[in-house]
Amino acid sequence: MKSKRIGNRTVKLENKPTIISASSVVGPKEGEGPLREYFDIILEDDLCGQKSWELAESDMVKTAMKKTCEKANKKLEDINYMIGGDLLNQIFPASFAARDLSIPFIGIYGACSTMAEGMCISSMLIDGGFADLILSGTSSHFCAAERQFRFPLEFGNQKPMTAQWTVTGAGSVLISPKGQGPKVTHVTIGKVIDKGIDDGNNMGAAMAPAAVDTIYSYFNDTKDDPNSFDVIATGDLGKLGKEITEELLAQRGLDISKVYMDCGIEMFNMEKQDVHCGGSGCGCSATVFCGYIYKKLKNKEFNKVMLVSTGALLSPTSTLQKQTIPCVAHAVIIENKE
Amino acid sequence: MKSKRIGNRTVKLENKPTIISASSVVGPKEGEGPLREYFDIILEDDLCGQKSWELAESDMVKTAMKKTCEKANKKLEDINYMIGGDLLNQIFPASFAARDLSIPFIGIYGACSTMAEGMCISSMLIDGGFADLILSGTSSHFCAAERQFRFPLEFGNQKPMTAQWTVTGAGSVLISPKGQGPKVTHVTIGKVIDKGIDDGNNMGAAMAPAAVDTIYSYFNDTKDDPNSFDVIATGDLGKLGKEITEELLAQRGLDISKVYMDCGIEMFNMEKQDVHCGGSGCGCSATVFCGYIYKKLKNKEFNKVMLVSTGALLSPTSTLQKQTIPCVAHAVIIENKE
Repeated sequence: MKSKRIGNRTVKLENKPTIISASSVVGPKEGEGPLREYFDIILEDDLCGQKSWELAESDMVKTAMKKTCEKANKKLEDINYMIGGDLLNQIFPASFAARDLSIPFIGIYGACSTMAEGMCISSMLIDGGFADLILSGTSSHFCAAERQFRFPLEFGNQKPMTAQWTVTGAGSVLISPKGQGPKVTHVTIGKVIDKGIDDGNNMGAAMAPAAVDTIYSYFNDTKDDPNSFDVIATGDLGKLGKEITEELLAQRGLDISKVYMDCGIEMFNMEKQDVHCGGSGCGCSATVFCGYIYKKLKNKEFNKVMLVSTGALLSPTSTLQKQTIPCVAHAVIIENKE
Repeated sequence: MKSKRIGNRTVKLENKPTIISASSVVGPKEGEGPLREYFDIILEDDLCGQKSWELAESDMVKTAMKKTCEKANKKLEDINYMIGGDLLNQIFPASFAARDLSIPFIGIYGACSTMAEGMCISSMLIDGGFADLILSGTSSHFCAAERQFRFPLEFGNQKPMTAQWTVTGAGSVLISPKGQGPKVTHVTIGKVIDKGIDDGNNMGAAMAPAAVDTIYSYFNDTKDDPNSFDVIATGDLGKLGKEITEELLAQRGLDISKVYMDCGIEMFNMEKQDVHCGGSGCGCSATVFCGYIYKKLKNKEFNKVMLVSTGALLSPTSTLQKQTIPCVAHAVIIENKE
């Protein structure tokens, strides 16, 4: 059946691209958080036996991708495409993982929106019949992100309370036109929104307007009811960004408060783990989705979920050049449907 | 009509995604090369009136995207998706261009393979009915690339003869399910190949095996005849990489020598412009395709073309960590067909 665009920005997928498996790998700190029981692998050593954090991150992606295939009883050579990317310059972790996995590779960059971006592209390609199996996933690593975007860890920089903590973790999904599992029913690709925030330690506030734009577009396009969802999950807005998102949506007449969570807040014990505004990084929504949310979908505790991964498209160079932070958010709607 | 996978890696597109317009912007040096008459805009100032090379690169992308829409009489708000990326950290130029153009944005990273990668994704999404108009394009800037990947220009580093010259330029295409223009008939997504080259000044040799893998896969999948093409164009292998590609393909029984060109060699006057092995960068295959090749397709001098943009997925960080260079190549087949 032919899928179609609805309204301005949303695509309704008629051929039921199915998430047949998902898996997650997290670092030691994430493994001490409230979601610990949902993750497949909790690392004892965040270097994964590698010589650098960047290589460790690549190793996590590879591990997550392999685990996802194993769970679905698929071989790596059965996979048509791997779609992935991450925060690091030239998506070092994803590129090196794709080399080792030897799967045709579509590299993407959406900063922390990568999990949803990859799921949007994968679901459309599966829905259109261009592939039988697509692996999509992403990762981030606290230590690699800190030294690239902020300061060397050894410098011991103190962060303001608006800052967030980059999640060490990787998650991936396997999407297929057939098989058992929740289905991707709609995707909404985001516009790049920039409301003038230029503080890299206040990403939640920078990204919130992009989340608002995408969430509002989905509901405006489909006339769907927010309360028909079990969960609407933003990627990594943190405490401040979540408040702003809820308020800006309310101003536009959309109340999502009953079903709204943010992966960055769920990931950590906000009282005890000293992560300021919460978790962030591509790995944040990736592991919360592939760990917690996917498992709740599988066991039917959740039946309709919106994942809105949110990304800040700044670079250290753009920051040095005194530019503000452009942000983007992509939405994937996943439902239990036969 | 339903498109289908052929063989192992190739997708045959049955719904004729059409390249309804294309445009190119190049820097002053490129504007002195042999293809000067084919480019839409030749800059007099490679800063484009901006304060940095990175902002200048973003401006070039924006200009190319707008020009491409104008040529097809389409407004920016009619475009469903912009698909793009570039060489710079966190795809700074593409992200900032997407913000200013306000088109839903799918960010990609494939290093210098970006033009073909974007065209592969765009063509599949158009073919599957997920969009009516997709803008896809990419850019590179000599000065921005040098300081990010090699040395500050002020340092005046001498390059070995295997090195290439990053093209300053941007190109973009507009793809639609209907309208006049050449059609994308097949796409072959590449695997990441790494034969152990670790010298960032010898990219042609590093990337050649990836080009070989993708070109060979297309012909193996389709049983097509190389001599049915008017041109098979690799992205930016340069003199050395082109020789290696031709030889490795010949060893596998595939002779493409009669129709084979490399965009990096065509771009410059190799005798006089002091570019060593030739042009490189995302902008190289982008401007040679959107300028020269597209115009030859439009006026029917060419009727069947394969564009194989080639990318080296190294990062300065991976180089410092003594890693070898993983490479990728994606192929798009474009034909004049009604």
